[in-house]
Amino acid sequence: MSLLVVGSVAYDGIETPHGKVDRMLGGSSTYIAIAASYFTDVQLVGVIGDDFSPEDIDTFKAHSIDLEGLERLPGKTFYWSGVYSRNMNERTTLTTDLNVFADFDPKLPETYCSTPYAFLGNIHPVLQRKVRSQLTDVRLIGGDTMNFWIEGTPKELSQAIAEWDVILINDQEARELSGEYDLWRAARYTCASGPKKVVIKRGEYGAVLFDASGYFVAPGFLLETVLDPTGAGDSFAGGFMGYLAGEGLSNIDAATESQLRKAMIYGSVMGSFCCEQFGIGRLRTLARSDIEQRFEEFRKLTQF
Amino acid sequence: MSLLVVGSVAYDGIETPHGKVDRMLGGSSTYIAIAASYFTDVQLVGVIGDDFSPEDIDTFKAHSIDLEGLERLPGKTFYWSGVYSRNMNERTTLTTDLNVFADFDPKLPETYCSTPYAFLGNIHPVLQRKVRSQLTDVRLIGGDTMNFWIEGTPKELSQAIAEWDVILINDQEARELSGEYDLWRAARYTCASGPKKVVIKRGEYGAVLFDASGYFVAPGFLLETVLDPTGAGDSFAGGFMGYLAGEGLSNIDAATESQLRKAMIYGSVMGSFCCEQFGIGRLRTLARSDIEQRFEEFRKLTQF
Repeated sequence: MSLLVVGSVAYDGIETPHGKVDRMLGGSSTYIAIAASYFTDVQLVGVIGDDFSPEDIDTFKAHSIDLEGLERLPGKTFYWSGVYSRNMNERTTLTTDLNVFADFDPKLPETYCSTPYAFLGNIHPVLQRKVRSQLTDVRLIGGDTMNFWIEGTPKELSQAIAEWDVILINDQEARELSGEYDLWRAARYTCASGPKKVVIKRGEYGAVLFDASGYFVAPGFLLETVLDPTGAGDSFAGGFMGYLAGEGLSNIDAATESQLRKAMIYGSVMGSFCCEQFGIGRLRTLARSDIEQRFEEFRKLTQF
Repeated sequence: MSLLVVGSVAYDGIETPHGKVDRMLGGSSTYIAIAASYFTDVQLVGVIGDDFSPEDIDTFKAHSIDLEGLERLPGKTFYWSGVYSRNMNERTTLTTDLNVFADFDPKLPETYCSTPYAFLGNIHPVLQRKVRSQLTDVRLIGGDTMNFWIEGTPKELSQAIAEWDVILINDQEARELSGEYDLWRAARYTCASGPKKVVIKRGEYGAVLFDASGYFVAPGFLLETVLDPTGAGDSFAGGFMGYLAGEGLSNIDAATESQLRKAMIYGSVMGSFCCEQFGIGRLRTLARSDIEQRFEEFRKLTQF
């Protein structure tokens, strides 16, 4: 069953201690869509400029991603560049040229309106609500946000979040959103604001799923070398949502504890692969067997 | 079978966002010894001053800790005080009065020399070696250290570490010791320096066990409120070493993967209890059933 993904499609320039790439396909919805494509059909809603290359279109097509919702406008594609610190635990933005993304106004093709699953990537909460309102038969909806919206548009954001079944945010965002430092309290606050499931991503330390029944910890996979962590959190979201969409759930309450935990691990698997090469370098070349093998490695490294 | 524990016995003054205690029993070997006492017999090697209270002696005795190696000298007991930041992720030392601990020269009572298991807490590596050299029948030896020795006495430290079967250090120490940021590389470097097992503690994020066969991740237990994290890493060490000592292993190679993983979880269990109250407040009042219950909770929060 299809998963609709909305968010940024971009070109990224990234420098890490292991290398530098001046321009490559990036953007949150690119990572989400490609990661999810290993588990389910994906419909991509985004905007690109007239500089967007046919090769990058082909990358999406190679993953059977439906591009009817990918609007092409005159002008340049969103460009972002950043540099990571020696230890990779800090990232400095060098360039943010929103370009055509500045006026992004997501309009769903008619065929997308009945899509059962959706993930609203990190865009203006009013736009997230606009997408949500066009979905007539949605069964399960997840969303992401960032500090910019938490600080800048808190009211609109809380209205958006109230409509989600699952929220996937990182620990700093959870703390800022809730005003609570302890993760457990931050998660409880977030649950009370609407989503029945709260996934808090903790970078190299993995992720935690909270709901009314308790919590589940997915560990971080330890790579010998993290080449480029850009997009790892989005790849997690893609694996998580893609797996749940592929399960054909009728709604969030139909998700079993086992399904939710597997979704957490598939998310972690996709996040770990993402870090192995620059950009989508590794993510785009996976076989399903690679994914299953790493899934089993996760089992081995946590069982006792 | 007995576990010998050597390290500091102290009085601590601690302030966290949740409260303040001016003076209470502390010191690394206090936490290690009490945590380990739930799993095995413990012999404590340390030094106290003439101000050390009978009530605190009784605390050790209540946990059947052998105090023949606890030397009492004229002068005051080691006193340390510190204050935690609002988020508890930073700690500022206010006072370090080494007092009788300044000239600590561990001498093992004759009855301790044949003790099969030992944990060398964070003291001068030359003293760690001195203790090691007095042990005639040791089967499994673990040790800890800190940045102060990594920077100040690297040669002596590497001689000490080369004699250990297991090293338990935190992630920052592992990185400093190895010069490698990636945890996996840091662990491999540390393994090459002697210990067959490397346990890297990551605070609230749990701990990772590395050996030649791979790694195992023990998650951090999420408490609703961390009252005082002081001693959590030492409590982990106590649970880890205490459990292995209680298993009666003939040497480190005799430890099965299952035993090592259980040791990691028992360590995590003891570390989590430690944070629930100030000082040893919670650690001292545990029943074995509390420990087993939390052990099972760890299983529940990681299984998928």
